Amino acid sequence: MRSEFELIQNIKDGYSLRYVGDDCAVLPQNGEMDLLMTADLLVEDIDFRLEWTTPELIGHKSLAVSLSDVAAMGGTPVWSMLSLGIPEHLWKSDFIDKFYEGWFALANEFKVELIGGDISRTPDKLVIDSVVGGEVAKGTAIVRSGAKPSDKIYVTGTLGGAAGGLELLENDARIGDIASQSLVLSQLQPQPKVVLGKLLQSQHIATSLIDLSDGLSSDLRHICDASGVGAQIIAENIPINPHLAAHFPPEKCLEMALNGGEDLELLFTTSEKISSYPDSLQFTHIGEVTANVGTIELSVGGESCRLPPKGYRHF
Amino acid sequence: MRSEFELIQNIKDGYSLRYVGDDCAVLPQNGEMDLLMTADLLVEDIDFRLEWTTPELIGHKSLAVSLSDVAAMGGTPVWSMLSLGIPEHLWKSDFIDKFYEGWFALANEFKVELIGGDISRTPDKLVIDSVVGGEVAKGTAIVRSGAKPSDKIYVTGTLGGAAGGLELLENDARIGDIASQSLVLSQLQPQPKVVLGKLLQSQHIATSLIDLSDGLSSDLRHICDASGVGAQIIAENIPINPHLAAHFPPEKCLEMALNGGEDLELLFTTSEKISSYPDSLQFTHIGEVTANVGTIELSVGGESCRLPPKGYRHF
Repeated sequence: MRSEFELIQNIKDGYSLRYVGDDCAVLPQNGEMDLLMTADLLVEDIDFRLEWTTPELIGHKSLAVSLSDVAAMGGTPVWSMLSLGIPEHLWKSDFIDKFYEGWFALANEFKVELIGGDISRTPDKLVIDSVVGGEVAKGTAIVRSGAKPSDKIYVTGTLGGAAGGLELLENDARIGDIASQSLVLSQLQPQPKVVLGKLLQSQHIATSLIDLSDGLSSDLRHICDASGVGAQIIAENIPINPHLAAHFPPEKCLEMALNGGEDLELLFTTSEKISSYPDSLQFTHIGEVTANVGTIELSVGGESCRLPPKGYRHF
Repeated sequence: MRSEFELIQNIKDGYSLRYVGDDCAVLPQNGEMDLLMTADLLVEDIDFRLEWTTPELIGHKSLAVSLSDVAAMGGTPVWSMLSLGIPEHLWKSDFIDKFYEGWFALANEFKVELIGGDISRTPDKLVIDSVVGGEVAKGTAIVRSGAKPSDKIYVTGTLGGAAGGLELLENDARIGDIASQSLVLSQLQPQPKVVLGKLLQSQHIATSLIDLSDGLSSDLRHICDASGVGAQIIAENIPINPHLAAHFPPEKCLEMALNGGEDLELLFTTSEKISSYPDSLQFTHIGEVTANVGTIELSVGGESCRLPPKGYRHF
């Protein structure tokens, strides 16, 4: 069965689509700015479960994932369109009002304006399509295809927390449980790295950039495929979410940091030393771009092995 | 239970949304053009039934409804983002390829480029969110709020065909049945009136404009509410789809023309005589704008009655 990535590639090739294949489409807007466009579809019982979260947090997360796509181009989010497919039992409750409260709390933080969308009924499941429009100075969007051999590979923040939170939720942890709170909120209330993305753009630091929505192993693969390069990363250098160790054995923590998506951290490559930049403490050097096209190697304890892409896939 | 219109009004008022409330949001793009943005969410078993149509026609219609929103501002559609929530049984079939064939057939007709979107799995139902971006010369988008008392009210084409087709499909008519083909295709393959919308914009004919997606009685109400006016329309002047008479009694045909949505015809008001314009034969004069704020009167056989909004509502 083909994956969704194969379908998208088939459609892109078959219909000669110029703008498909990065975190956002980059469209000419005017003499100074490009328009960034992204869409994220979230489906109940596939992308979230009502019993694990709150209406406010679903509102937050549905916008956060799209803001993260704009961050992954180095852009500034400006407006959003929100389409909601709502089952009748939620329509009759106060769910929708609370959903909007969570959505607008995040939107206001980034001065994102809701400009439209659509509302439909669904037979039984909640469906959310989050579309965000952003902008970036003309020609300066940071795409996936700019990585060059010998560039250094960096990530922001720590990885694996959202995957750990998901596993705890699947094992009956709930919001409010003190022991699992940090990881559960990593899953349910991820923070888009808009400020860091803009910093990378304004300082001309990054040669390529993507957000870690599928997982490091998959998203690094996307950069390598788009740039026509390979990569080598060092397991010991990966900033594993420190809260994971209290719940999972070390090899499981590494696996979550490598393959868990949804942290909404950023992955980027750079040809420079970035230790001199402000906020550089939030960036961790995890490896190098190589000329070994299409091959991603993981070094663990000095031993090198191939790293297959294992992030979340719908199909 | 509140309607979706009430929810949208609540959200618009509660969060001071400037761009919500017309067929498209109108955003500044550059010195010459405004950007038009619209979204339409289509849900299986709510907005369409797989057993009544074909994958290609679902592709066609999901784009057509959004192109119609751009037409309803007098704009030119330029690009689209398409988010698909797909159940596994359709993913495993050739459904998606055929869907895109139908989608691109219409997109190519209007030179609309697919720039992005998202693909997710759904538990069981197909969900489509169609987002279209268009453009219009700065400050010239035709909004709903410009109707003035004594303006004349016009519609394009004929009305009620899509509603008639829906009722025939509900009564087991199918694509290919000769007797019902025209009406069934009015429902399944509506044609957006992009060329007529652009004509209205370029000739500065219309004082207000909307597409008939909810139904004449509802959409005329939207214009009256936005413009702070009333309206009087003459039943005998309404261009009822001529194919309806073979299947339904006269009063049912009128009811379908008044309350049936989805024909994707245009409804507009004008202060001018339009008989001198090219293509004016496609416009039918059905009534007048009045100063009787909030009241829509229907004259039938010389008798006047109030016309309540009765178009399709999700809630």
